[in-house]
Amino acid sequence: MAKKLTKYILAEKDMPTSWYNILPDLPKPLPPLLHPQTHEPTILPPPLFPAALNDQEFSKEHFIEIPEEVQEVYKMYRPTPLIRAYKLEKALGTPAQIFYKYEGVSPAGSHKLNTAIAQAYYNKKAGIKRLATETGAGQWGSALALACQYMGLECKVYMVKVSYNQKPYRRIMMETWGATVIPSPSTETNIGKQILAQDPNSPGSLGIAISEAVEDAFSRDDTCYSLGSVLNHVILHQSIIGLETEKQCEMAGVYPDILIGCVGGGSNFGGLAVPFVKDKMKGKKIQIIAVEPSACPSMTKGPYAWDYGDVAGMAPIAKMFTLGHAFIPSPIHAGGLRYHGMSPLVSHLHKLELIEARAVDQKATFESAIKFARTEGIIPAPEPAHAIKVVIDEALKCKESGEKKVIVMGLSGHGHFDLGAYELFLAGKLEADAYSEDNVKKALSQLPKVDYVESK
Amino acid sequence: MAKKLTKYILAEKDMPTSWYNILPDLPKPLPPLLHPQTHEPTILPPPLFPAALNDQEFSKEHFIEIPEEVQEVYKMYRPTPLIRAYKLEKALGTPAQIFYKYEGVSPAGSHKLNTAIAQAYYNKKAGIKRLATETGAGQWGSALALACQYMGLECKVYMVKVSYNQKPYRRIMMETWGATVIPSPSTETNIGKQILAQDPNSPGSLGIAISEAVEDAFSRDDTCYSLGSVLNHVILHQSIIGLETEKQCEMAGVYPDILIGCVGGGSNFGGLAVPFVKDKMKGKKIQIIAVEPSACPSMTKGPYAWDYGDVAGMAPIAKMFTLGHAFIPSPIHAGGLRYHGMSPLVSHLHKLELIEARAVDQKATFESAIKFARTEGIIPAPEPAHAIKVVIDEALKCKESGEKKVIVMGLSGHGHFDLGAYELFLAGKLEADAYSEDNVKKALSQLPKVDYVESK
Repeated sequence: MAKKLTKYILAEKDMPTSWYNILPDLPKPLPPLLHPQTHEPTILPPPLFPAALNDQEFSKEHFIEIPEEVQEVYKMYRPTPLIRAYKLEKALGTPAQIFYKYEGVSPAGSHKLNTAIAQAYYNKKAGIKRLATETGAGQWGSALALACQYMGLECKVYMVKVSYNQKPYRRIMMETWGATVIPSPSTETNIGKQILAQDPNSPGSLGIAISEAVEDAFSRDDTCYSLGSVLNHVILHQSIIGLETEKQCEMAGVYPDILIGCVGGGSNFGGLAVPFVKDKMKGKKIQIIAVEPSACPSMTKGPYAWDYGDVAGMAPIAKMFTLGHAFIPSPIHAGGLRYHGMSPLVSHLHKLELIEARAVDQKATFESAIKFARTEGIIPAPEPAHAIKVVIDEALKCKESGEKKVIVMGLSGHGHFDLGAYELFLAGKLEADAYSEDNVKKALSQLPKVDYVESK
Repeated sequence: MAKKLTKYILAEKDMPTSWYNILPDLPKPLPPLLHPQTHEPTILPPPLFPAALNDQEFSKEHFIEIPEEVQEVYKMYRPTPLIRAYKLEKALGTPAQIFYKYEGVSPAGSHKLNTAIAQAYYNKKAGIKRLATETGAGQWGSALALACQYMGLECKVYMVKVSYNQKPYRRIMMETWGATVIPSPSTETNIGKQILAQDPNSPGSLGIAISEAVEDAFSRDDTCYSLGSVLNHVILHQSIIGLETEKQCEMAGVYPDILIGCVGGGSNFGGLAVPFVKDKMKGKKIQIIAVEPSACPSMTKGPYAWDYGDVAGMAPIAKMFTLGHAFIPSPIHAGGLRYHGMSPLVSHLHKLELIEARAVDQKATFESAIKFARTEGIIPAPEPAHAIKVVIDEALKCKESGEKKVIVMGLSGHGHFDLGAYELFLAGKLEADAYSEDNVKKALSQLPKVDYVESK
């Protein structure tokens, strides 16, 4: 019997040496970012980001070379494997072929490291000595902590206080990699002090933590700010996921009928999808599904509208699917998917009907995660468990129809630090999803009034 | 510039298809196991282990074929990578070449899964429906939980109560994989009930948990017992680590001058070392170092003597380096290295001077672990941090001497569930190692009196 291959592994020499930038290939240009006060087209706030990243944000190049030094660090864990889910297929009794691209092999445990390394590199090249950022559950903070350590930069992480107290392991991980982590709101920034003056017991929020990190970066010449999702240059860096997946599908002799990824800020999904979206724009038949939580359904329920990128209304305004910057999603365990809006680029792809969106319920995602863990072994993070749910749905449709579809999924990270949520699920104590139409309506009533008209 | 390779990755088709059994190659035969009461040579207690594993324990075959089904499951994470530690080398300024074989890519996070899968397979083949085992910190329990799930067996884990309460994540991991985990001492066994009757608040111990698992297996026809280290068949299964490492060294065009692994029960070290010990017996020049904690220095301070394999004196008696079965090591964080004795096979290799042993202090191991995490990214478990300490020592010796030695290390697992210990270290609160000569003397006074004389 010929041995079936389980893992499709690229050689280091076959790792992509350029990122793919979809911007110049779009059939209709991406709407600009607008200044939060003037509503005029703007770039990323310059002192916050080095020029190289601002250039990448709006680049017209189709491919951007990955600097040698970044490639070298990537090779400590990349190329990541594409794995055939034989055991899951068998358990489902599906004729579909299921593959997953596993980014959890990165030392930080998720795809976030791909952009963290690149961002730390460009900041170092620009003479920056220190990066400031925020983190909620800690995925992004830990990726940036490690990337700064690799590149010899200092790293300051403002961690939402409630997570700081509830998720000590992620904090210790960042500290192990040499970052300074403080609970937000802190007394180290003016905004933090103001909030603590009003409420000394404030649990913090991602919005507050962003404001603190931005203030930190503004206040010091040696420091820039770093963002782990949403922006074009982040999706650019993450395109290495999709580029590798394409090559690995070739190795496996397949092309996906369906490509599935979870979507929060959009960087994991965007990075996986863009090379395949390019194929689709050229006429290739492929269904590309972004999966979001039903507790935060920006693409399935939100309008495509101008909205602030941040809660405080200080970040640029972007055209995106949004539930309103004032919308606060219920505290689902997939913290990485709790963003009020959606990456402008992913939003644009959705508007152009190059991708589709689906929302799934938290309980169903954990059911699917358990099925995955008990067949494939890997315990997924709650975020990619959303993608797994839709993979299983599609595989079961194939079981009914008899279709032998090829389903490829992005498995963005492992759930080693999310086992508390698994325990709640296993004990039948997982909170029901809360989604309030009323809250969304209220939040949407606070969208900025923007008169900007896009040129044709 | 020719690109330097960072990871040496074997293709699945190059994964070894047989395990290596060193027993028939030994220059002097391994002393037998003795019955705990009669002191006559004995096999593993038959109802506890299926015949196939008992056969492997004493096999005269040089190579034993890995069953097809086990190979298939191995391929979900094997072959594991051999990684060149360029960043660590650079940070140390050493001319040495450092490589590490990383077993943390297994879904259970350590090398333990290699034998767990094999044991679950042979038990299934023997018609066994259920396995019982004990676990301390949870590494072994989680590996067996996943292996049983892969093979369709039930799994019952008796987890030392103090760990059950302190390390909920490991417990939840086992439950996620479908195992039933109860704190030991429990009310489900007679021994557990007896202990709880004497002390309702007993924190449990590995010895008690073993007794409960053994009683469980004795009491049910459908159940066998499973042990994660110490025994020959466990080291046999783990030999796949060393066999892969040999091939990967060939890929890298090197042969180790020094091979280093941490050692507790002996299975990680033994599995890595045996193929290289074979080379050494044939005259190859290689230094093979087993690293143990100075809090539990069986090989560096214990006598080579007959002793019980377990604390209770119910298991067979083995010739091994031991601190006495009554010795209780101080509660260092490398829980996997807290065994009073040493695998009889590894002990024998040490007695024959085919390997050497070194003991290192806990604080020094965490310092080394932090250095490793900040250069190579991976946060190691406290157990392999012992090996890292000696790797760094040897690399710094090369820095002084200018020797370009090739150092190969076994990195048996990641430390995602050990971050509590890292926090203590980073905060300067790690307890100093406690090792009491007096306690060892007392324990050694309780060695069994054995008259058995080995034939020449």
